[in-house]
Amino acid sequence: MVALDVGGTWLKGAALARDGTALTSLSRSTGAADGPEAVIEHILDALVEVRDHPATGQPAAVGLAVPGIVDVAAGRAVWSENLRWKDVPIRALAEERTGLPVALMHDVRAGGLAESQVGAAAGHANVLFVPIGTGVAAAIIVDGRILDGQGMAGELGHVDVGHTEPCACGGAGCLEAIASAAAIARRYSARSGIQVTGAADVLARKQAGDPDAGEVWAQAVDALALALAIACSLLAPEVIVLGGGLAQAGPELFKPLSAGLSHRLTFQRHPRLVPATLGDRAGCIGAGMMAQALIDKRAETGG
Amino acid sequence: MVALDVGGTWLKGAALARDGTALTSLSRSTGAADGPEAVIEHILDALVEVRDHPATGQPAAVGLAVPGIVDVAAGRAVWSENLRWKDVPIRALAEERTGLPVALMHDVRAGGLAESQVGAAAGHANVLFVPIGTGVAAAIIVDGRILDGQGMAGELGHVDVGHTEPCACGGAGCLEAIASAAAIARRYSARSGIQVTGAADVLARKQAGDPDAGEVWAQAVDALALALAIACSLLAPEVIVLGGGLAQAGPELFKPLSAGLSHRLTFQRHPRLVPATLGDRAGCIGAGMMAQALIDKRAETGG
Repeated sequence: MVALDVGGTWLKGAALARDGTALTSLSRSTGAADGPEAVIEHILDALVEVRDHPATGQPAAVGLAVPGIVDVAAGRAVWSENLRWKDVPIRALAEERTGLPVALMHDVRAGGLAESQVGAAAGHANVLFVPIGTGVAAAIIVDGRILDGQGMAGELGHVDVGHTEPCACGGAGCLEAIASAAAIARRYSARSGIQVTGAADVLARKQAGDPDAGEVWAQAVDALALALAIACSLLAPEVIVLGGGLAQAGPELFKPLSAGLSHRLTFQRHPRLVPATLGDRAGCIGAGMMAQALIDKRAETGG
Repeated sequence: MVALDVGGTWLKGAALARDGTALTSLSRSTGAADGPEAVIEHILDALVEVRDHPATGQPAAVGLAVPGIVDVAAGRAVWSENLRWKDVPIRALAEERTGLPVALMHDVRAGGLAESQVGAAAGHANVLFVPIGTGVAAAIIVDGRILDGQGMAGELGHVDVGHTEPCACGGAGCLEAIASAAAIARRYSARSGIQVTGAADVLARKQAGDPDAGEVWAQAVDALALALAIACSLLAPEVIVLGGGLAQAGPELFKPLSAGLSHRLTFQRHPRLVPATLGDRAGCIGAGMMAQALIDKRAETGG
């Protein structure tokens, strides 16, 4: 299969064997600054380039993961703030350009599918995959199936965790506005007057004993514990996989977050909290799995 | 089919035609005060009575909805506080007594299935069914499938909505501890020193201008709006169906709750908020639908 994960910054492509082995891979700028038309061209060019690579062989399908709101049934990229596109018939465009059937998927759900099947939560039917970076997103797997909700399920970043800071969505109190990597950096700078490059910088200052950094970090962890506990009540995950930049923090994140989550849960299932294992290839691997599922389904129905 | 919904207080049984029409029905005390052994006998007796009723004809299967934690795959009633039973192999017992295949289901999920297919949310694939009575529960339907989570999904009543009152679960801040019908009555009595019979009594006092009643009611509605908004972020329901005793409150509940929910949602899908239409027969109707699904599945696989 040909697989491509379209991120706000990078296109990650690969040709994958049936068992998921990468035969060749590609990584390049999405070119979001050039506007949505250019992004679409870059996507289609990348798909053709992977399709035509000598190592790819004869691919049977394409898996394409895109960000924002995605209407999988209609094959349309409805909206993406990062890519500034709106209602793009991306599946039809990709099928036309590649001559192959295309499985379209939301990027976070593609990553969640991969982590739940061949990554950190392999073997589990009830999984929450939470990438934390510029924002906070979630892919929800229950009873072995990934929730779509017509492209709108999984907005963990906009769960109200009870603070008063405004969120880019227009609301207030959102998890993302206090616990994303970007929010941690922004809130530390606002509090201390010191500009930082990101959440890793805040963590380093916390470890060096900066009380502002310690407070901002603790507030983020508390908010995450609350939001994850809520998700546990509603969805009963066996495993919660944390991904994205913030998951790189290791024990400084996982230890207090596990403790906070355990403290908040009573009769609910207590999930294992683990870091993602597929890194920034998760979306691409998930897209490949969707392409394989499309091939299998067509073989089954003779279509 | 033979269908039975086992509640904490009532057994609601029926023989249902393939189209869901009730051929005969039964309603009697669960007899929870007599202990779990007696409850099991009452359930098995009720199943046989409906099976043998002349109007029932030749039933092909039984649908059985039970409360608490239910392991559908293993056919076991794992735990119920109300019925005081623990790890009862209820499906095998019912199959043995009736000589019919038995579909076992959780009572709230059975009710949600019925409301989402033939009740208040018929025609929608993304539905939240929230019965509010002694507690607050939820059945979650996403992409046309009801979430199970190995019997543990849907604990909306134990979402932390940010108050400090203790909950029967051992935690604090739970929705159920401030917004169930029982909590509304309890909190009003604690605040005013006046004993009331239930939430309907509190509502009547609110309408008569009692400020304590007004405050307790408003706090319950605010907490429900917060919890439902969180569920909307995660699950994107098109319709939220409110059931149980509290939904009888009509516009006094639905009007401020709809306004509070709309106020809290930004880019998320805004669901319609509607009262349940199947009343206390929802669980029984859902159980019948599960029995029919079992028959259809066996016919398909030739089993």
